[in-house]
Parts: sequence; structure tokens; C-alpha cells
Amino acid sequence: MNTAIMQADDAHYMTLAIKQAWQGIYTTRPNPAVGCVIVKDGMVVGQGFHPKAGQPHAEVFALQDAYNKGCDVVGATAYVTLEPCSHTGRTPPCADALIEAKIGRVAIANVDPNPQVAGSGIAKLQAAGITVDVGVCSDEAAELNRGFFKAMQWQMPYVRLKVAASLDGRTAMASGESKWITGEQAREDVQKLRARSAAIITGSGTVIADNPALSVRSQLLGVDVAQIPTPKIVVIDRSQKLSIGDDFQVLRDDNTLLWRQDILTLLKTLVQKYQCYDVLVEAGARLSAAFIQQNLVDELIVYQSPCILGSSARAMFDFNIDNLSERQQFWLQSVNHIGRDLHLIYRR
Amino acid sequence: MNTAIMQADDAHYMTLAIKQAWQGIYTTRPNPAVGCVIVKDGMVVGQGFHPKAGQPHAEVFALQDAYNKGCDVVGATAYVTLEPCSHTGRTPPCADALIEAKIGRVAIANVDPNPQVAGSGIAKLQAAGITVDVGVCSDEAAELNRGFFKAMQWQMPYVRLKVAASLDGRTAMASGESKWITGEQAREDVQKLRARSAAIITGSGTVIADNPALSVRSQLLGVDVAQIPTPKIVVIDRSQKLSIGDDFQVLRDDNTLLWRQDILTLLKTLVQKYQCYDVLVEAGARLSAAFIQQNLVDELIVYQSPCILGSSARAMFDFNIDNLSERQQFWLQSVNHIGRDLHLIYRR
Repeated sequence: MNTAIMQADDAHYMTLAIKQAWQGIYTTRPNPAVGCVIVKDGMVVGQGFHPKAGQPHAEVFALQDAYNKGCDVVGATAYVTLEPCSHTGRTPPCADALIEAKIGRVAIANVDPNPQVAGSGIAKLQAAGITVDVGVCSDEAAELNRGFFKAMQWQMPYVRLKVAASLDGRTAMASGESKWITGEQAREDVQKLRARSAAIITGSGTVIADNPALSVRSQLLGVDVAQIPTPKIVVIDRSQKLSIGDDFQVLRDDNTLLWRQDILTLLKTLVQKYQCYDVLVEAGARLSAAFIQQNLVDELIVYQSPCILGSSARAMFDFNIDNLSERQQFWLQSVNHIGRDLHLIYRR
Repeated sequence: MNTAIMQADDAHYMTLAIKQAWQGIYTTRPNPAVGCVIVKDGMVVGQGFHPKAGQPHAEVFALQDAYNKGCDVVGATAYVTLEPCSHTGRTPPCADALIEAKIGRVAIANVDPNPQVAGSGIAKLQAAGITVDVGVCSDEAAELNRGFFKAMQWQMPYVRLKVAASLDGRTAMASGESKWITGEQAREDVQKLRARSAAIITGSGTVIADNPALSVRSQLLGVDVAQIPTPKIVVIDRSQKLSIGDDFQVLRDDNTLLWRQDILTLLKTLVQKYQCYDVLVEAGARLSAAFIQQNLVDELIVYQSPCILGSSARAMFDFNIDNLSERQQFWLQSVNHIGRDLHLIYRR
């Protein structure tokens, strides 16, 4: 593969391919979200994305799009956000489709970390005489599939922990009253987080106190909610207070997992047994703190309301350290306004 | 005065005048910061700002700048961020200087709320046949002198309350250890806040625990620190634990005020007796909470570090409310990155 020769417009077209890929973000799991744009003589002639496991991959949709428009793709460049697959899964290998279509060059954002692919797609293309360039907009494309990448490499899910708090770091009044600290738009955004997640983890305390549904409700996601695979609900219940069938919303569904072991084992199990690569923690202050203290949180998402709740209100994270040197350090990945609230994303 | 006829470039030139004014922000008090730009035939021929009480006003500097360059100002437009004065204070009235210079038009951002001016400068200019337009970039210009405006209108200072905290709203460990939660750049920025403030208020608890100097130390302010009037230090000491002369940094200076009454009376006194219009509160969780609960804070400035200190660490604001409806609501005025920290400005 050739990582040196990049063309001037590569970033532009790969950005379009990444945009395509985002359309599948809620629906492709456990498959990665992938987009493809085919460019011939400086014109986009076809584009597509992988919509759902079992359906064709992005390359096939992009080729089909070009053929539907009557466009010639011989010698064209295909921009693909992830290495085309070389193995026959539920669909035939995409590398073959690109070879058959006589594509001249393939620009790829990231090598597929899936051990079933991992460079073999690239090798197959090159063996067919196709020029392959890897690494175009790799960071931007990696954002699409943080869970998939982490799971393939580390057999651990990508863990997002979400918390809504006041500017003084409080999540509820002492009584538990918390409806609503953040505004409607922030709460809508949580629907997106849930829709992206293969599993949502909460604690028995939250279930008993709030009886949340933890369901994906929003019609604002830009996709048919029915197409979104229902996230697996996990209730951590170490003290064995709950049973499936109990009169709480999440326990009516026998797809819910009541977990009574440690959380590290849970995360490994979610990857290995359930193919859950993107995991969202929506829990109380103690369970959230446990995830953070065990260094199991990849991304901390804070919806911060511009209000003060005072010192008797509930803390964001319930754990005690004595010295500043023991603090849990993150770095701020992004800041956005969301309604009157702030949307803060921290990473380790 | 004519507020309707604004010219296309008015905002552009007034923005330059506002930029001029910012240069005096640390040094003019108790006078307002004012800038002036003189424009003739589409060219900036002179500019200036008021540097310090007792020195000439912005208009005089701008006229002088034009004359120094040999530029003609007859019929020119003067952009002034605040209504030119009409009274003789320590310097002769600026309205007279503009009339004498045969300026053709004066664009003004804001009417001077000082009862000694309050429209009389405008009237004087108009009586001399000068066209006057008021309201150009008035919001932007008002940012220069929030303290001056509030004091003139309400006989109360503009109160900024500053706090440095972790993302979970904690300012120190239970032991008091807090060096350093935020980074160096955030701490440098506090120097700017202090330099802008006519008074800095703290509490006896903070003095006893931390022995702060509360001095303006930074060489990064872009002005000679010696030109900055030393902010008046106020130590709120209701329990009468301290005396001037005690072995704490702020008590060595007999200019420090030990205050033993309520904080509302303090704020009124700061305006009436000391001409302190911009006031900074740098205090502990209890005193800070008192200012907020008594609705005496105009601007809350939070330096937020991307770390978690946990639930035994100290709260930002020490007060108890039972219901969410009693929360203290702000709105977020601005968000900026400052080093690895966030700089958040909230207003009421």
C-alpha cells in the first residue's frame, strides 16, 4: 500500500464518504458504520453507506448508485472509510466488487482491525493492480466506530458515561428530585447516545428509585426508530435486590441482563457474548464512580446546566480521595452549546 | 439626536474605537474606559483612549493624534464609545474640544449614565450644529464599563464572583489542598480579573486558611503593572477574628478594609465611599454562596478543570436548598478554552 501519495482532493472526498457513513451510525451494529464515495474525473458519480448488518456494504451501494445514474466507474477512485472486506460473510467480499467494477484506485481511511480482514482486503485490491492509499482522514473516520475498533483490538467495549449536572456538579436534590436539571434539547441528545449504544448499563439503585425505561424514543434521529437494534439493558445488581419480571420498566423485558459480578467481567462479556461494542453507562453517583475509578470509562459526557443546586444536593461521583494527586484526570475533547446547557465530552 | 441614520461603516469604526478603549481597561478607574476614532473621507486620521483618571479623555488624544500626523479633522466623523463630557472635571469638557476642532459628526455608542453628563454632552454638540448619532455598537461598548454603568444607574457595583473547580464542582480536597486544580493559564487569567477590579472581596476564613496576597502580579496584562490602581482589599470578618496588622499578607496594608456588617451594605459603601464600581469576589464556599443567594452576583466566572475530585472534596457553594425550584439560575454568557481548562462566564 502507498501512504505517501495523497491527492489534493482526497480529504474532501473522504469527508463526503464519512458523511455517508454517519447515516448508518444507529443501525449497523454490530457491524461498523462505513461510507463510500466514487469519484471519476473530479465528479462524484456514486455514494452509499452500510445501513444494517445483513444488507450490502457501502461499496456495493455506491457502485449501484453510479450504475443507476448510468455513470462509468472504470478507472475511478473509490473513497472508503474502512478497508473493504475480503471475506464472505452474510454478503460477498467488497474488495471483489471493486475489482470487478474495474475501479482504478481505492483511498481508505482506516485498515479494518477485524482479524478476518486486517489488511487482506488491501492486499486483494493491490493484487488486482488497484492503487491503494491508506490513512486519508483516519482520525475523523475512526470517530464513527470507536466501539468496533476498541473491541477488535482490546476485546473491550468503548464505554461512554453520561451525566447531567448543575454547574456546581450536582445531579439531583437530596430528595432525589431531578426532573429536570437540563433542558429538553439536552435530554433529546441523550436519545442519540442511547441509539448509538449496543448496551445501556444502569444500577439497581437507579431502577428502584427512578424506574427508567432507558428506551430509544426520539423521532429526531433522522432514521426510522424501528430500524435501530434495541440496546441491551444491563442492570448491575450486586446485592441481588431485583429479578426479571419485577414491576420495573426495564425488568419487564427478559432481554434485560441482571448482572451480579464485577463490572470488568461484565464489559468483557458484553463484547464476547453479545457483540456489544459501544456501551453507555447511565447510572447513579456510586456506580458511575466505580466505572471511573476502575479506569473503565473511555468517554465522559456531561450535560451541564447553568444553575447552582448547592452543597446538600447529590454529587456527580460518589467516591472519596484524600489528595489532589489521586484525582481522576480527563481531557476535554469537545464543548458545544445545547439549548441553554453545555455539552462536554471528556476522554481519558 | 438621531438614532435612525447610521452609516454603513459605522460599526466598523466604532469597533476600532472600542478596541482603543480596551487599552485603558485596567487603569482608568474610577473613570470609564473610553476610546475614540476620527474618520475623514473614509480614512482613520486619529485615534486615542482615556488612559487614566486625571489625564485627557479619548477625544483629546484622538484629535492630538490627527494633528500630530498633520491631518485635517474639519468635517470629520468622531466615533466615541461613550458620550463626550460636557462638564469641567479634572480636564476641560470633550464636547468643547470636538466643537472647537470643527468635527462634522459624532457617532456615540452609549449615552453617559453619569448624572453630570447624561445627554448634556450630546445637547452641546447638537447646539453647535454637529450631527450626533447614538447607539452604534452599544452592547459591545457597554462591556467595557459594566461597573461604571451599574454604579451610575443603581449605586451598586458590578460584582464578579470567581471560582476554580473540577468538572464535578469541587474546589479543594477535604484537607483544603487546592494547589493547583486549574492550570497556569487559568491562574494567569485571574490576574486580569483582579486588574480590572476596584475591590477584591474575600472572607476571614480564606485569609486564615490560605493567607492569599490577592495582588496583581502578572506582567502579561499588556500594561505597566505600576499604572494599575491597586485594588482595595476587603476582608469580610463578621466573627471579628482578624485585625489590621495581623500577620497575614492582606492585613499588612492598612488600606485593607475589615468588614463586619452585611454584604449588601458593603457593596453600597464600596460605590459611595470608595468609588469601587467593579468588584471581584474571591472567597470560600460559604461567603460565595451568600453573595449568590442574596442575588448580589452579576457575573459568575468559573475556571473548570477536566478532572474529578470526588464527593468528599469541597463544594463550590455551601448552601442548602430542598427543591429544584429554589435553584440559582444563571445563563451562560461565554465559553472559552484556557489551556486545558474551560473558562465559563455566567450572568443572571
